[in-house]
Amino acid sequence: MMGVGVGLIGSGYMGKCHALAWTSVATVFPDVERPRLVALADATPELAQQHAQAFGFGRGTGDWRDLVANPAIDVISIAAPNQFHAEMAVAALEEGKHVWCEKPMATSLEDATRMRDVAKQSGRAAILGYNYIQNPMIRHARRLIAEGKIGTVNHLRLEMDEDFMANPGEPFYWKSERASGYGALDDFAVHPLSLLAVLHGRVTAVVADMARPYPERPTTDGGFRPVENDDIAQALFRTETGASGVLMVNRAAWGRKGRIALQVFGSNGSILFDQERMNELQIYSTDDAAGLQGYRTLLAAPSHPPYRQFIPAPGHGLGFNELKVIECYELLQAISGKRDAHVIDFERGLEIERVVHAMAQSAEGGVWVKV
Amino acid sequence: MMGVGVGLIGSGYMGKCHALAWTSVATVFPDVERPRLVALADATPELAQQHAQAFGFGRGTGDWRDLVANPAIDVISIAAPNQFHAEMAVAALEEGKHVWCEKPMATSLEDATRMRDVAKQSGRAAILGYNYIQNPMIRHARRLIAEGKIGTVNHLRLEMDEDFMANPGEPFYWKSERASGYGALDDFAVHPLSLLAVLHGRVTAVVADMARPYPERPTTDGGFRPVENDDIAQALFRTETGASGVLMVNRAAWGRKGRIALQVFGSNGSILFDQERMNELQIYSTDDAAGLQGYRTLLAAPSHPPYRQFIPAPGHGLGFNELKVIECYELLQAISGKRDAHVIDFERGLEIERVVHAMAQSAEGGVWVKV
Amino acid sequence: MMGVGVGLIGSGYMGKCHALAWTSVATVFPDVERPRLVALADATPELAQQHAQAFGFGRGTGDWRDLVANPAIDVISIAAPNQFHAEMAVAALEEGKHVWCEKPMATSLEDATRMRDVAKQSGRAAILGYNYIQNPMIRHARRLIAEGKIGTVNHLRLEMDEDFMANPGEPFYWKSERASGYGALDDFAVHPLSLLAVLHGRVTAVVADMARPYPERPTTDGGFRPVENDDIAQALFRTETGASGVLMVNRAAWGRKGRIALQVFGSNGSILFDQERMNELQIYSTDDAAGLQGYRTLLAAPSHPPYRQFIPAPGHGLGFNELKVIECYELLQAISGKRDAHVIDFERGLEIERVVHAMAQSAEGGVWVKV
Amino acid sequence: MMGVGVGLIGSGYMGKCHALAWTSVATVFPDVERPRLVALADATPELAQQHAQAFGFGRGTGDWRDLVANPAIDVISIAAPNQFHAEMAVAALEEGKHVWCEKPMATSLEDATRMRDVAKQSGRAAILGYNYIQNPMIRHARRLIAEGKIGTVNHLRLEMDEDFMANPGEPFYWKSERASGYGALDDFAVHPLSLLAVLHGRVTAVVADMARPYPERPTTDGGFRPVENDDIAQALFRTETGASGVLMVNRAAWGRKGRIALQVFGSNGSILFDQERMNELQIYSTDDAAGLQGYRTLLAAPSHPPYRQFIPAPGHGLGFNELKVIECYELLQAISGKRDAHVIDFERGLEIERVVHAMAQSAEGGVWVKV
Repeated sequence: MMGVGVGLIGSGYMGKCHALAWTSVATVFPDVERPRLVALADATPELAQQHAQAFGFGRGTGDWRDLVANPAIDVISIAAPNQFHAEMAVAALEEGKHVWCEKPMATSLEDATRMRDVAKQSGRAAILGYNYIQNPMIRHARRLIAEGKIGTVNHLRLEMDEDFMANPGEPFYWKSERASGYGALDDFAVHPLSLLAVLHGRVTAVVADMARPYPERPTTDGGFRPVENDDIAQALFRTETGASGVLMVNRAAWGRKGRIALQVFGSNGSILFDQERMNELQIYSTDDAAGLQGYRTLLAAPSHPPYRQFIPAPGHGLGFNELKVIECYELLQAISGKRDAHVIDFERGLEIERVVHAMAQSAEGGVWVKV
Repeated sequence: MMGVGVGLIGSGYMGKCHALAWTSVATVFPDVERPRLVALADATPELAQQHAQAFGFGRGTGDWRDLVANPAIDVISIAAPNQFHAEMAVAALEEGKHVWCEKPMATSLEDATRMRDVAKQSGRAAILGYNYIQNPMIRHARRLIAEGKIGTVNHLRLEMDEDFMANPGEPFYWKSERASGYGALDDFAVHPLSLLAVLHGRVTAVVADMARPYPERPTTDGGFRPVENDDIAQALFRTETGASGVLMVNRAAWGRKGRIALQVFGSNGSILFDQERMNELQIYSTDDAAGLQGYRTLLAAPSHPPYRQFIPAPGHGLGFNELKVIECYELLQAISGKRDAHVIDFERGLEIERVVHAMAQSAEGGVWVKV
Repeated sequence: MMGVGVGLIGSGYMGKCHALAWTSVATVFPDVERPRLVALADATPELAQQHAQAFGFGRGTGDWRDLVANPAIDVISIAAPNQFHAEMAVAALEEGKHVWCEKPMATSLEDATRMRDVAKQSGRAAILGYNYIQNPMIRHARRLIAEGKIGTVNHLRLEMDEDFMANPGEPFYWKSERASGYGALDDFAVHPLSLLAVLHGRVTAVVADMARPYPERPTTDGGFRPVENDDIAQALFRTETGASGVLMVNRAAWGRKGRIALQVFGSNGSILFDQERMNELQIYSTDDAAGLQGYRTLLAAPSHPPYRQFIPAPGHGLGFNELKVIECYELLQAISGKRDAHVIDFERGLEIERVVHAMAQSAEGGVWVKV
Repeated sequence: MMGVGVGLIGSGYMGKCHALAWTSVATVFPDVERPRLVALADATPELAQQHAQAFGFGRGTGDWRDLVANPAIDVISIAAPNQFHAEMAVAALEEGKHVWCEKPMATSLEDATRMRDVAKQSGRAAILGYNYIQNPMIRHARRLIAEGKIGTVNHLRLEMDEDFMANPGEPFYWKSERASGYGALDDFAVHPLSLLAVLHGRVTAVVADMARPYPERPTTDGGFRPVENDDIAQALFRTETGASGVLMVNRAAWGRKGRIALQVFGSNGSILFDQERMNELQIYSTDDAAGLQGYRTLLAAPSHPPYRQFIPAPGHGLGFNELKVIECYELLQAISGKRDAHVIDFERGLEIERVVHAMAQSAEGGVWVKV
């Protein structure tokens, strides 16, 4: 049997992450065929060829359309700049390729909607790079919640924070331009929302606020330029079950590096998670005897699939990049026709984008907005 | 020299806590005179006499007005049920006594306003039992922020959660009646707001949501009764400096016991605190060298006043009740005429009450409310 | 009814701690009579009178023998320098007083043995100030172990570390003199050994090593003086049940402030504790379902006696000084004739001293020593 | 340019881990040529061919000597059962291959010595699979210590614990046979000792104890069989600098999954690490201002080489398997002739084995043993 033929567009950090996933997935998961790494596209032929060789791809090209046209390629990884996602994904799907597209889905709701529509018509697997949902601890949390271990979920708090915009002395660059998006809301909110989607359900209403900690930033010529978007955003929300919640994102939060903290409260217990300690999950359960109730820290282990495929011993730890290997595996499942592959496809991805846009709309108007 | 004469109204848990403070304050702090524990009032003379003896008070009485009328008493501790706070505090102040009143200040904004007015006219010390602000780690955080250690504060997150209402099977009792207040908002919000007041400043606008995880609760006769207030509340807010923030309170949060978690972000660093680990403070500072930046956990120590008065060695830990001893010391300072005693007086207490009421109003109307 | 009459010798830090306990015990515990604070002795009459007034004692004296001779006094707290413990305790016991003596028991094994002998003959309560055993979390751990919750204990690790001798630039002072004892072994080892005694059982054999991180220390005259004892000590040990263990103590451990860390492993689970987070206890139990096993953090709560006497709500936290209040309560129980009061009496205290001396002997000879 | 030709012996868990490293190393590290995965050997040709295909190797063989004889192969990964390590390594080295051998080095000190000797004569790179030393946080700790950040190291505590032998009901299997080794000492001690080697230096003397928590274990036929080795071991030690230390290993420690905990104390600070939180490092430094000293938690970040090669953003986390990728990179450096590649070669590996054997000898005799 032959593995799928792979084309990769983009070989920056996320492209490298995809390449690692494609080269590792069959080593890790014994039930998939080793993919054929057919070709890699990047901005220039030279760059493409250099990375094709380093990453183990057959050839490199300066034109991503070569990949779309190549009949040896079954699936296309899109790790190119955000503004090209829609065009590339649509072209690939229309050519009958499966698509693995990095987030954000697109730079406008219109583009995202079109991607969803084309994906639906194509019948191909079309998924987004929401790798945090692949963490075995998140998947374990999902199972525990589904099994009713913490009862009916009634409240959720979601935080995502980093500090790459925290330095007020950092010169103005494109991240602070309005054209790059709302700011923290675009950069971060989709991630905790993807976790909310798999752990709980849909957001139905939001009221949001966005804030600009540094109204202006220095420019390289010694002046100052007004900041055009918001490094901080927060929203109160309600979900389809009536649960209440809070979403907080901050890309200027000194000390936070890769924090995605979840607090999920239910009628019988609660679950805590923080991506900065991605191999741990905390659960409090009223099933425990009185005098013995407390948050229990679970360490990632073979009993939390698919951890066992990586390491047969508990507590040894997976890394961020390995979540992408799991995502790649789930994509292969989806390509094989598995209905309930654990992925965020374009349909669910569009729902997430809608929540983000509702938040932005609410922040502008100062009122609750229905999603 | 003679210490102040003390009258204590109420000898339940908070009364006991006041009694411990009055009996310990001069042992702990060498610069105050040992107070004279003159009399204790409670619901019945028997109860009052029994506790007077146990707590070391001279006599017990079933009528709190005896204390107000007693010339040997200089200061009155009010640890009676909330609905009596206003009447007792006003009576005591009008009689020229200093007042130490437990929170909440009163059961209506009108009463609270009257208490503030009478206190102002009286010229007496009139403070509220916001003991969390007395924690040496909070006071250290306050100093660090004031000194600019984390730069200009631009974002705050405040959480207070317990789980005493988390069990949906717990029969309906007065805490779920509308008459007892808004629910979690009354029970909890004032505490993080008192911390916000001493660490940062005033809240100027809020948008809030309140939620009822269990719409009804069982009654002891086997039926069900609709819950009339909200075990969960959250609000987005802005402060006088323009900082943005989020306040979250939940008295049905399984697993949380005495959590009051603060995240304070500034332009040069951030500070974290959780009352469940009340002897620790975390700080992230960009003053640290690159490659060595990270959250630092400070353990309560003699270098964090007034810890040294309790224990000369670092890391040994204070307890919740000891915060009341510090509060008692600060009250004695205020009584001595010290202007900047570290207390929440009736003036500042009223400001806190106003924020709470603005949140309730916002939750009802679904819009931002100015404070 | 009348409470016991109390005499306190010493009013430095530990004296203050005893005073706080005596003044608080009846407020906290409703079932004991409020003690009468009769007299306080210190080095000079002036100091004694000043502290007597501050601490609420009837009178002060410069001669501790006044207390021993005073018929109004039933129990004597000894918080004087170590070298006087034996003399004072023996005198008090011989006069028919109960004795509460701070640790270390004495400065020689001979003195400690004599104290034990006199205590036995006297029939009075004679206990030592091992307050860490009073922590509700330690007492909870003891119950859990006794109930077999972690099965048969087979391995223990005990650490006690502080950093008050960690600075090599700190001038030589009496703590580094051989006359003051072995060093860390005397200062610290008795504490974890007291915990071992209540949680598990007797030590039967040891092999130890002691180390001197700084062979000399600066003197105030600009020179250097050789250090005469050891700031670090460690021992392997076996217990009466055949369990193996390790004891580690270090008073030059930068960063450790009040660490007393326990790891207790059994055939069905394990228990962890660290005094620096004295309101927490961690337990791992194989009773938990597969996929849900992990260390659970218990927060101090009313279900962990006698926490409830201090605070009716969980997770609010006790402090180091409050352990002394519990110890005082247990002493009162012992005085009342309760057989199984939770204390380290002179008999058990002597056993602990013997283990310490066996370790010192082993460290000198480099061989295993039986206790 | 062509990458090195690789032969892999063994395709169980560690073989898979080597395969992942070989397939990923050039994707992660841009400065190495992509290795050629020439052939894979396992117990049967069928198994070998199946895994060769899955792992991306050119061919599979049932005879590992095929690899040794294959001129297209430059380096051989040995991930076969321990008893074959010596034979395979010696054969490969004598044929001029470089060798990457999993730990333990060999099953006897004689074999290990021979391996060291042959490696020395061969002039080839010969390294052992001590992957924990490759953790960017350990390498950062090493740099910090080398730069004097915590001053002169004077005390170390090393723990390695898991619980795979903790269940007393687990039937007797080969791990409990004397023929498999001393028990925990062989399984674990080499790992913390490898960390000690890179962070500090050589062990010069030890006194050890080994313990058998379960003297017998059930057999599958309903009987019991005496356990022949020790699931627990501990040792006091001294190092070449005079520092004192303690080593503790336990493979029956309920709750511990992959714990390798280090405490390194120096004259200016201390460093803590726990492999269960492998992306964190804690440091206490007296360089910090008074009132601001505390353990600081560093999260793995691009400023901790070679983390940046995997992920350009801080705090996202590496996994256990990725340490093997770094090890593979360092092996390639050694093969390229780099003198100070960060590896444990056969020479240093032999030193570690000698310490382990000295501990076993000490445990038998009950006396200090020089290494």
